[in-house]
Amino acid sequence: MAAPLRLGIAGLGTVGIGVVKIVQRHADLIAARTGREVVITAVCARDKTRNRDADLSAYAWESDPVALARRPDVDLFIEVMGGSEGPARLATEAAIAAGKDVVTANKALLAHHGQALAEAAEKAGRVIRFEAAVAGGIPVIKALTEGLAGNAIRRVMGVMNGTCNYILTRMEDAGLPYAQVFEEARQLGYLEADPNLDVGGIDAAHKLSLLAAIAFGTRVSFDAVEMEGIGAISIDDIRHAADMEYRIKLLGVAQLTGRGLEQRMTPCLVPMESPLGQLQGGTNMVVLEGDSVGQIVLRGAGAGEGPTASAVMGDVMDIARGLRLATFGQPATGLAVPVAAAVATPAAWYLRVTLVDKPGALAKIAAALGEAGISIDRMRQYTHQEGSARVLIVTHKATRDDVTDALSRFGATGVVLGEPVALRIEDV
Amino acid sequence: MAAPLRLGIAGLGTVGIGVVKIVQRHADLIAARTGREVVITAVCARDKTRNRDADLSAYAWESDPVALARRPDVDLFIEVMGGSEGPARLATEAAIAAGKDVVTANKALLAHHGQALAEAAEKAGRVIRFEAAVAGGIPVIKALTEGLAGNAIRRVMGVMNGTCNYILTRMEDAGLPYAQVFEEARQLGYLEADPNLDVGGIDAAHKLSLLAAIAFGTRVSFDAVEMEGIGAISIDDIRHAADMEYRIKLLGVAQLTGRGLEQRMTPCLVPMESPLGQLQGGTNMVVLEGDSVGQIVLRGAGAGEGPTASAVMGDVMDIARGLRLATFGQPATGLAVPVAAAVATPAAWYLRVTLVDKPGALAKIAAALGEAGISIDRMRQYTHQEGSARVLIVTHKATRDDVTDALSRFGATGVVLGEPVALRIEDV
Repeated sequence: MAAPLRLGIAGLGTVGIGVVKIVQRHADLIAARTGREVVITAVCARDKTRNRDADLSAYAWESDPVALARRPDVDLFIEVMGGSEGPARLATEAAIAAGKDVVTANKALLAHHGQALAEAAEKAGRVIRFEAAVAGGIPVIKALTEGLAGNAIRRVMGVMNGTCNYILTRMEDAGLPYAQVFEEARQLGYLEADPNLDVGGIDAAHKLSLLAAIAFGTRVSFDAVEMEGIGAISIDDIRHAADMEYRIKLLGVAQLTGRGLEQRMTPCLVPMESPLGQLQGGTNMVVLEGDSVGQIVLRGAGAGEGPTASAVMGDVMDIARGLRLATFGQPATGLAVPVAAAVATPAAWYLRVTLVDKPGALAKIAAALGEAGISIDRMRQYTHQEGSARVLIVTHKATRDDVTDALSRFGATGVVLGEPVALRIEDV
Repeated sequence: MAAPLRLGIAGLGTVGIGVVKIVQRHADLIAARTGREVVITAVCARDKTRNRDADLSAYAWESDPVALARRPDVDLFIEVMGGSEGPARLATEAAIAAGKDVVTANKALLAHHGQALAEAAEKAGRVIRFEAAVAGGIPVIKALTEGLAGNAIRRVMGVMNGTCNYILTRMEDAGLPYAQVFEEARQLGYLEADPNLDVGGIDAAHKLSLLAAIAFGTRVSFDAVEMEGIGAISIDDIRHAADMEYRIKLLGVAQLTGRGLEQRMTPCLVPMESPLGQLQGGTNMVVLEGDSVGQIVLRGAGAGEGPTASAVMGDVMDIARGLRLATFGQPATGLAVPVAAAVATPAAWYLRVTLVDKPGALAKIAAALGEAGISIDRMRQYTHQEGSARVLIVTHKATRDDVTDALSRFGATGVVLGEPVALRIEDV
């Protein structure tokens, strides 16, 4: 049997403790599957005195993650602290510099510094693995990098922030407004300290940018993700969408077009009967489309102690087995800088407009759409409140520029009350 | 760059030609992702003159797959001929003996000879990979062996024969009887030469036995799979199931119980709203349940040129990248002989009984269930034909032995017409 693989774990929150538990509970199973012992030699967290749900007495304690990363009795550095800067970054850099492999759950770190870290790891002959950073327990990095390696990837899509999907599902099920469900989620501890990471789409966009880099062989390009959060989604829109057999999801889409790489993380309508439309609650789903394989759908828990620790351990056991791969599936120095394309792939759109209840108002809206070059697939009008009517429109395929043009023409008609809502309907 | 990886492909049917096309179309992408060229040096099929949808002129031709397997200019032998015996087996054995790695799509070969082949490969320091043998393009072998390696697997389930799922879906959608849809499927070329491989559940059971070996660290134990085909499923049962919000699927389930390893491939009812229940048409789905990760659901095309070739190429590219793993995820010699447990995990059951239309008939059935220790969750009675009534029962959890007992008691009541139907309702 090979020498034991010695782990140092930086971060003893939910994920770190989850990893400790698996290593302790499944020592035999891990050894049988990898052909070697996997042991923890040292751990690190800010507060040593905090009561934790695991016995850590057998491990050396470090208060500084950089010191942990440099310990000679650590072969593999596990970074589960989080944060794109500060200790997580410094310790990861130190680990690579000290010749350690790295397994991380840190999407923010890789979204911002993935290229530099991958190049450093490559130069040092070390690997960085990050299955746990995207879609929790779903082995999607592996599926994309390895399982689908023979495919030119056409599109990657995903619902990858469980909190947002929980909020949207709960709004629909309970008929509650966004603000109230947001507050519920906060009290349940579902939201990050900065909730905008969740509901603003940032966390999910971090994940999307990592998938896009692997899928298209380009450098991580988080700044080019077009982002829109779920804060403006109303219970009315959720209900109207449902009336037309759609659900609203915070959906990430990355695709290579003739104009370049489109990456967006925005609320979209998807058919209720599609796998994405059927995804309720905090579960995650990733859809991978390849030129040979067609569409592969992966579904599972996107967060939580067990699922995230499972993903970390998958990476750890790959390394224990000697499976070594470039960070983004090919040499980092060879990754192209992507041409960031503004989102221009045409789509059908859902438009919600409130009109003054006057003869000819609807005709003016229809005319404005026509002038913007947009044709109408379906239209419904409801009496809304005294003196106003609500109009829902599903367009035929149009670019976002055309839709923006139409919305500005709506303003000029003088019959529109308030701000119209426009949401993309993704072909899934 | 490392030396090219040289492939020999035995079998130029749909899958073989699919592999040829990917290697030709994506030479650059494959080299970028694996760090080396992947080239085909030789191919083999029964009939050289047959017109094929790819240019094979650059490759050496062998008429004997064993000769192909032994060629010194072949590093990796790709077996996509099929069949558990004969040329496929001989050539695979020859390849291993000659020191070649093997990638195969052949579930029958591995279900019958997987243990011996894995031991031979291990002894020779070679690998056998078979992603394409299970669920087509879905990278499920990889997800189970590698991604979920840190989990004790609790249960593996799958709809893994697209033809059966097509038949059941088509019966439901078109309201057609089994025999007619079976004939349609035959004419569409969806059925194997021996249709019992599909509709008898054998093909799907081959796949299940491979997943079970990986999941539970046991030797492949195909003979222990309890099998029941879909031939007895009537359109009535499909409709009754739908009335109660269920769909009927040919579902494979493997789980380790206190009594041993249960493996079954049988028609089951699953909730219509579950991912398995929503799987319509020829698509495959595999559900993996681990103690840390919870439930992971994978969905995609289970057959066809592109998806199956994609799976073959995933394996080829792993080997090109130097990712080498034991056939079933751990040393073959260490795999335990599983204790085959008769299926005894309790389940709810769907029962369909036709009764003579006489007072007290239903009471006799209810009493027979009680005597067998089975309690009733839901019951519906329909007038069936003149002089008979149809009763549908959903039981609370009961073992199959209890159900068998109840059915024999039904016979003794003297009020039952024809054969009752009993189908398991799987908790999914």
